[in-house]
Amino acid sequence: MPLPELKAILNPRSVAVVGASANTTSWGYVYVRHLVEYGFKGNIYPVNPNYSEIMGIKTYPAVKDIPGDVDYAISCVNSSQVMPMLAELAAKHCPLVHLYTARFSETGRKDAAELEQSVLKFARSHDMRLIGPNCMGLYHPGLGIAFGYNLPKDSGTVGMASQSGGGASGFVHIASLRGIRFSQVFSYGNALDLNECDYLEYFLEDPGTKIICLYVEGVKDGRRFFNTLKRATKIKPVIVLKGGKGDAGARMTSSHTASLAGSYRVFETMIRQAGAVSAADYEEMADLVVAFHYLPPVKGTRVGIIGGGGGPSVMAAEACEAAGLNVLPLPDDMRAEMKTRGATVWDWISNPVDLSIIGGSGISDVDMMHLFGKHPDYDLIMVNFNEMVGVTLSGDRFKMAPLAVKGYAQAKEKYAKPFIVVVGERGLVAEQYEDWQWKTIAEARSELRKAGIP
Amino acid sequence: MPLPELKAILNPRSVAVVGASANTTSWGYVYVRHLVEYGFKGNIYPVNPNYSEIMGIKTYPAVKDIPGDVDYAISCVNSSQVMPMLAELAAKHCPLVHLYTARFSETGRKDAAELEQSVLKFARSHDMRLIGPNCMGLYHPGLGIAFGYNLPKDSGTVGMASQSGGGASGFVHIASLRGIRFSQVFSYGNALDLNECDYLEYFLEDPGTKIICLYVEGVKDGRRFFNTLKRATKIKPVIVLKGGKGDAGARMTSSHTASLAGSYRVFETMIRQAGAVSAADYEEMADLVVAFHYLPPVKGTRVGIIGGGGGPSVMAAEACEAAGLNVLPLPDDMRAEMKTRGATVWDWISNPVDLSIIGGSGISDVDMMHLFGKHPDYDLIMVNFNEMVGVTLSGDRFKMAPLAVKGYAQAKEKYAKPFIVVVGERGLVAEQYEDWQWKTIAEARSELRKAGIP
Repeated sequence: MPLPELKAILNPRSVAVVGASANTTSWGYVYVRHLVEYGFKGNIYPVNPNYSEIMGIKTYPAVKDIPGDVDYAISCVNSSQVMPMLAELAAKHCPLVHLYTARFSETGRKDAAELEQSVLKFARSHDMRLIGPNCMGLYHPGLGIAFGYNLPKDSGTVGMASQSGGGASGFVHIASLRGIRFSQVFSYGNALDLNECDYLEYFLEDPGTKIICLYVEGVKDGRRFFNTLKRATKIKPVIVLKGGKGDAGARMTSSHTASLAGSYRVFETMIRQAGAVSAADYEEMADLVVAFHYLPPVKGTRVGIIGGGGGPSVMAAEACEAAGLNVLPLPDDMRAEMKTRGATVWDWISNPVDLSIIGGSGISDVDMMHLFGKHPDYDLIMVNFNEMVGVTLSGDRFKMAPLAVKGYAQAKEKYAKPFIVVVGERGLVAEQYEDWQWKTIAEARSELRKAGIP
Repeated sequence: MPLPELKAILNPRSVAVVGASANTTSWGYVYVRHLVEYGFKGNIYPVNPNYSEIMGIKTYPAVKDIPGDVDYAISCVNSSQVMPMLAELAAKHCPLVHLYTARFSETGRKDAAELEQSVLKFARSHDMRLIGPNCMGLYHPGLGIAFGYNLPKDSGTVGMASQSGGGASGFVHIASLRGIRFSQVFSYGNALDLNECDYLEYFLEDPGTKIICLYVEGVKDGRRFFNTLKRATKIKPVIVLKGGKGDAGARMTSSHTASLAGSYRVFETMIRQAGAVSAADYEEMADLVVAFHYLPPVKGTRVGIIGGGGGPSVMAAEACEAAGLNVLPLPDDMRAEMKTRGATVWDWISNPVDLSIIGGSGISDVDMMHLFGKHPDYDLIMVNFNEMVGVTLSGDRFKMAPLAVKGYAQAKEKYAKPFIVVVGERGLVAEQYEDWQWKTIAEARSELRKAGIP
């Protein structure tokens, strides 16, 4: 379909929720509630013959009873009711339907797969595009449409298309904790009509989207996907997470979205040749988004590392080396400058800079940031916050964390080099939850985020 | 040295802190404070000519002024003062000295290395054993000796010897959040006298230690280490984390503890042949300790996985497969039982069991645990808690988390199979810290821990 048209229908001004409900645990309720909570400005039309209102919003017995146009319909009815619903929506010239409704081809059952084909045939012959079936649909914070609780209400620059709805909302949440916001997210399930290529084309042209994330289990048209991906990566970074890399995963994609996972080796080669970046899992996709969002271009692999005790410094050096970075020893002129400034450890200190060594030496971690920052031999600066050791140091020392973050932020502003701070992810137990140390770490994380430091 | 003797001197009843201080940011203060705070029952003798008391404890001008025996001395003096201090300690027949004091061979300086050798020679000729130098020394919660704030005050069954002090206290903290407690931890730095073999022998014979963790940067006597390790692994699991695997790490171990890292390939082969387990980093060492501590023996690789949405289930299947586990498809007799019980998805549901599929099917996640638990084809059961998707579900649904944990705990008790729950580690930012969802996750984590579920 021509892109301008796709663009128009993906920005609806009226939404019908067919199969709406007052039962708060049903998705027929949740979709209506999200439209209200996320502030959808257009008309909301819940449809259900058993209610006159849901959440105080007038509810219609059937689609045909809706007085105005329907730009977008969210289907929460059972699969057996989808065909009659589509007929009514077609009569109103509804251009876009999100089929939250599931139990089609992904069940592996013949009759369900046949029904799915009838749905497609009907939509194609009535100028109606479909998102899904078997998916969560649209998260568009700018319009006030969402598919989960606790997703950010403000917009950002990351676009995502995902065959998994749970994966999409989980990922939005993970990334949001790290300061990332989204332009639009499509959870598109079985990709019966609109598929990964359509969403990719949409994001590629969308000026509000600067980074594209894809979670795909199967690709409908390999040639078109490769070509679209190649076009997209010329303009903006595209990160691809593939579901179904091995046997167990592939079996799972089949029962999840009826996707044929294909050979992962072939897929990975295609991704690389198209100039996109592969993510191993959701966590790595979040790391990649964070890097693309916050960092200036990384011009080389030579990294200066600061912080951590001895053991953690050794581990940091090894992790960086294993990732292909060059943990360059300190150059002579940097050592000479340290000596001039009276640092007693000028000949001993190494890269990574072990903070337990420089303590009391007359040179601080922030001083080291400036030395790395201005030295042409280093392309990238990394601070190991090492909060787990921090909490075992005295209270007074640990309270200096916010001060350190201020120093980091100032140094970061001064040099146009990529600069990151590593703060470990840590799952708290209830007993520790109220300890001030953990709150200090959470505050440091917030401050780093505000300073634009990933 | 004969083991009974080592055992005696590692359980001191009087401690001198030489170079004690009232300056709260100095370790001369911190070691005294820890003895008080962790409840050391024996005599505490701070030594410093400039104070008459520290923290209300009578302070002595010099070691020779201490009225009683000194079983254990913690040296916080500068390296230049170590030799005179040792002379005084020798006069009192002190059998064990912990040299927190650093700046010996690890500086790479000739005079410092020579001083270190003099220290060793003196100790050897005066029946005095040394921990260190350049280390944090002893954490022995049972005796009330510690080297960091916020370490657990109660004892457990994990023994650790570590060349890194920061790494040791960080690791104790990481593991403690997961319910692990320690018998004793030795941070032993440069291993000038007592080395990894001595600590390993000690833990091997210590009835209170059930699991041994080692962080080693270099090994002083490869043959003895291999033989001791082989003896130890026959009795209890030994987990080894090696520092200095590559070039950058090896450079770092040299400036950290003057260790020659050697070839990691040779080292790894030795570890494996000795029957020990290698950890890639501190996080993996924590995972391994948790597994050895909580789980019954794992008899096979066939895993049943429950939970997560579609995408997370695909990722879980792939992670398990990549780790060498067998994500076995559901066997026919299990499907037949599901059908008999009226589960509408009996022919569709797969392993991993996608919770978004079984919702409303008449079969719950806890039901699936029982099915996997009693079925002979499964060796291991894993629940994907997937809290990141959980927080995007409705409040009411998410509040069911504690109930689910109760169900898990009951199922776990019923079957003698290893059972684990995967809850993602997540670093919070201050803004989210007070949200009830995160507290719910922390509480679920605590409840799992209480139920003995890793």
